[in-house]
Amino acid sequence: MAGIHSVRELLHRDKPVEKVFVKQNSEHEALRNLIAQFRSRNVPVKYVPQRKLDKLFRGNHQGIVAIVPPVRFMALEDLVQRAFQSVEKPVFVLLDGITDTRNLGAIIRSAVAFEADGIIIPEHHSAPVNEEVAKTSSGGIFHIPLTKVKHLSDAVFYLQSSGVEIIAATEKAATGLDGYKFTAPVGIIMGDEHKGVSHQLLKISNKRLKINISGKMDSLNVSVAAGIFLYEIHKQLKLEK
Amino acid sequence: MAGIHSVRELLHRDKPVEKVFVKQNSEHEALRNLIAQFRSRNVPVKYVPQRKLDKLFRGNHQGIVAIVPPVRFMALEDLVQRAFQSVEKPVFVLLDGITDTRNLGAIIRSAVAFEADGIIIPEHHSAPVNEEVAKTSSGGIFHIPLTKVKHLSDAVFYLQSSGVEIIAATEKAATGLDGYKFTAPVGIIMGDEHKGVSHQLLKISNKRLKINISGKMDSLNVSVAAGIFLYEIHKQLKLEK
Repeated sequence: MAGIHSVRELLHRDKPVEKVFVKQNSEHEALRNLIAQFRSRNVPVKYVPQRKLDKLFRGNHQGIVAIVPPVRFMALEDLVQRAFQSVEKPVFVLLDGITDTRNLGAIIRSAVAFEADGIIIPEHHSAPVNEEVAKTSSGGIFHIPLTKVKHLSDAVFYLQSSGVEIIAATEKAATGLDGYKFTAPVGIIMGDEHKGVSHQLLKISNKRLKINISGKMDSLNVSVAAGIFLYEIHKQLKLEK
Repeated sequence: MAGIHSVRELLHRDKPVEKVFVKQNSEHEALRNLIAQFRSRNVPVKYVPQRKLDKLFRGNHQGIVAIVPPVRFMALEDLVQRAFQSVEKPVFVLLDGITDTRNLGAIIRSAVAFEADGIIIPEHHSAPVNEEVAKTSSGGIFHIPLTKVKHLSDAVFYLQSSGVEIIAATEKAATGLDGYKFTAPVGIIMGDEHKGVSHQLLKISNKRLKINISGKMDSLNVSVAAGIFLYEIHKQLKLEK
């Protein structure tokens, strides 16, 4: 994790931090404040030159990089079982080919914000779950179970056999998201921005839903679309219970 | 505009293109297809080395850059008048310090998708409206009137005097977006990701609304939050009329 905002979030949320690297000779007050807090928690702080930070984190690190334990993936079966144990109607997010790290991070951030219970991504054809994703998820990545599967279709069948309604988000749907009543546990599939949800997954989904938009645009940004689906599902399944 | 998807969108939407630059010796079928379409429309196509394209467009241009006429800004008064002439309850989007070009582009894309009638940005403390914004807006930038103002607060007063209800999107609100009934023409203020909507604008807004999210996160990505507000406003003011 890097950047003042994200690192402050780690502290604020009491997340585990192994070590902190800070730019030498920085006079930035926000940085000094963070350093003091890490010191009071006995987290080692090391001063390094700018180029070391650039190596540790590609992107805008703002002079601070925190080393966090790696994200742990769990098995699909464990993720699903855990979700059903903690809530009555869990919500799962399946990501079909989200290859942009910023989109992946923003979707994870929204999934945590809207209390989704797990994220399922394919082993191949997905953005790597790296520091950039952790940063754009605003630390959300440490708050939600993740699983990697060989084929999303197998995850769909497994979820369906557990009573989960699988919804594909696609502009090609006949039904709009507005007006749709979510009743069962939900698995929402969001597709790659260019090709959308794959044909194979569209075929095995229980339902296809679209966001009604103007004919002037073909689609929304995928992280925006995911946010809208998760907002609507959260409103119906989590807030109104 | 650059990139296969965005350039195809320009063609698809019949947007004006002055000239197209394509990478020399490219065997990419999608590129050849685009070139043929531009030629049939008498748009000049020029083959250039990769480095020329890199200069024309910083970022992933995928071997094609289309030169489009510059975005035209109109005066606030004209934008508002035009909006009231074309729809009964126009929707305006005010951006208070959105300095990230990708966020700005995604918000413009959502604004067009959800039929907003104008975008108001401040002259200072905003991302520049450039090629990167045009690309991430998926060409949306050519479909919505834009205006730049010296002070957003003056725009707020002007809109209020025209009967527009000004809503500030802020996590500090007491009222949630879900359940809120939009009745009047709306101006929605989205704030900078770190500081949110400025105190001054919060004070003069008619209403503050928040998106109800889990305590595990402080906020959503600003382009996701904007998309959710615009989705909800569109559902109530544009779809259900």
